[in-house]
Amino acid sequence: MNNRLKCLLLNLFLLLSLSGKAQEKISIGEKKNLSSAILNENREIWIHLPKTYNDSSIHPAKYPVIYLLDGEINFESYAGMSDFLAKPPYADMPECIVVGIKNTERTRDLTPTKSHKKSPVNPDVVLFGDSGGSENFVRFIQEELKPFINKNYRTLDYSILVGHSFGGLFAVNVLLTHPEYFNAYVANDPSLWWDNKILITKTKEYLDKNKKFPDHKFLYVSQADNEEQNKNWNSDMTQAIEEFRGIVEKNGSLNYKHHFFENEVHGTVSYPGNYDALKYIFKGFRTDIKKLSKNPQLLEEEYKKFSQKAGAEFIPSESYLNVILKFMKTNGFKESETYFDGLKNKLYPQKN
Amino acid sequence: MNNRLKCLLLNLFLLLSLSGKAQEKISIGEKKNLSSAILNENREIWIHLPKTYNDSSIHPAKYPVIYLLDGEINFESYAGMSDFLAKPPYADMPECIVVGIKNTERTRDLTPTKSHKKSPVNPDVVLFGDSGGSENFVRFIQEELKPFINKNYRTLDYSILVGHSFGGLFAVNVLLTHPEYFNAYVANDPSLWWDNKILITKTKEYLDKNKKFPDHKFLYVSQADNEEQNKNWNSDMTQAIEEFRGIVEKNGSLNYKHHFFENEVHGTVSYPGNYDALKYIFKGFRTDIKKLSKNPQLLEEEYKKFSQKAGAEFIPSESYLNVILKFMKTNGFKESETYFDGLKNKLYPQKN
Repeated sequence: MNNRLKCLLLNLFLLLSLSGKAQEKISIGEKKNLSSAILNENREIWIHLPKTYNDSSIHPAKYPVIYLLDGEINFESYAGMSDFLAKPPYADMPECIVVGIKNTERTRDLTPTKSHKKSPVNPDVVLFGDSGGSENFVRFIQEELKPFINKNYRTLDYSILVGHSFGGLFAVNVLLTHPEYFNAYVANDPSLWWDNKILITKTKEYLDKNKKFPDHKFLYVSQADNEEQNKNWNSDMTQAIEEFRGIVEKNGSLNYKHHFFENEVHGTVSYPGNYDALKYIFKGFRTDIKKLSKNPQLLEEEYKKFSQKAGAEFIPSESYLNVILKFMKTNGFKESETYFDGLKNKLYPQKN
Repeated sequence: MNNRLKCLLLNLFLLLSLSGKAQEKISIGEKKNLSSAILNENREIWIHLPKTYNDSSIHPAKYPVIYLLDGEINFESYAGMSDFLAKPPYADMPECIVVGIKNTERTRDLTPTKSHKKSPVNPDVVLFGDSGGSENFVRFIQEELKPFINKNYRTLDYSILVGHSFGGLFAVNVLLTHPEYFNAYVANDPSLWWDNKILITKTKEYLDKNKKFPDHKFLYVSQADNEEQNKNWNSDMTQAIEEFRGIVEKNGSLNYKHHFFENEVHGTVSYPGNYDALKYIFKGFRTDIKKLSKNPQLLEEEYKKFSQKAGAEFIPSESYLNVILKFMKTNGFKESETYFDGLKNKLYPQKN
């Protein structure tokens, strides 16, 4: 064997053994770097694609996008949760792309105004010196990140912004300043106490001026059981969230759910909050495969109803139609099978 | 440059570029193959290690193990959930290794007896011909899988078995036949209707004979809102779960929680069920870092109390102690900092 051949074989062996090892890993996403001119820094983005994204047996589909703040903390659990909730035949939500944004200067990016606060523990320490950059950060998301995602992935024009604490403050602020940017907003135990409750003032001003929120917008707010925390730390977290709730519920124009979680504290509430938020935002999305066996046209009726509520068009995914077809076939519902065969050919015509 | 050098450089380049690509993936675990003599087949096992498992800045720690049935369905969401719930300083549970068991012959492995049933949809179809292999399957877990995991990973002698539907039936059966195998059992909407409610009979027999369940055992049962399903499919799912609940609650010797989930159906209940189950099994594990600032000895007291309840010894992890120490230092709680410094040196002595 000559040297060139030896080298080739060794390379082949390396390639195969390394790729073999890589296959054994269970991967839920990938990290990308995005150079932001607006923020003048590189940002690390964690991207999770849904299960069917690369399924070559179906037509390439488009997916809603969930933008997740504090990506490095929430990405793994959120990706698992959204995939589970989107699993047919009992899907509570459509499959979504999850885009986690890793923090660099968290306080700078997520707070709407420059504000200082003395540490509740040690008054000599001044907190939040580097605050007030949220307008820049949302411009980064809207003008740089979203175009990057839309260019590189197959996306539907439907997106959700998810944040916790300062991230919740950020989400509420984006709803007030750029409500058109996202279809739905999730604010887990949001820091609405920020800067003398500046967002309460802004909410009042917004409603004085606009009278109501735009149609088809959703806001979910979770609230932790912070009583103990309040006792120890004199926080006005709870009071500000309650005040905000009062204003929004009185106005009544927003699809709004507030949920108080007993026994969850500020640091734990975002997990059940995120679950409950997806259930709320996508309420009406789940269809009952058993009912469809007797009433097949219910599927399109329910998707139409849901789409009207959501303000965006959702149609049954090809993978769900395949599950339905298999169910009808296995259980001998011949008429329904024919119906869904027709629907599938209508929505996802086979290439000739 | 000679050929040998060229070959070496090319290999180096390949290695670096491939490992560079691999780093960009976000991995939550790995797949292993285990050859089972008991089942006479190869089984695929999905293994998730907690965040600190390979953290070289702390002493190598040991972790409880969660054995998860239907691994291919639940692994991703369970791994994300358990990591999130175990995140200090608000950890609701210890960090755990998650072992997902992928199905081969699901009905065979998870059902305790050989039983046939006519399809509720089409009486000509006989279901579950290949049933009744659960004793073999639990022997595989106990005699082959657990030794494999214990040999290859750093495990604590504390384990949980988690199943849904037939998997829940399996979990309850293991509790009745080999209660010593696991510390806690999770049965999401378990198929206790199986074989004329054979496990109801077995539960009665077990309690007639033993009077009570062994100490420190935990069972969590979630129940879906199957009313609609029952109407359509004449299932006795709900009735059997209710009957089981009555017997176990009346006996009163088991740490037992039953939770009914409104609006969750059989196919969706395991997700919130798994979350609620972990909260129940590890209730009392979470300590309040803010309280510890004023009352540092509370930490050991609460771990002792929790360990007594759990029937296994849990101590504060080194990573949690590091978080506590950082908190005390940042906020100027000097006395508590000194206390936890001492505790850390006691529990995790530095090598000289």
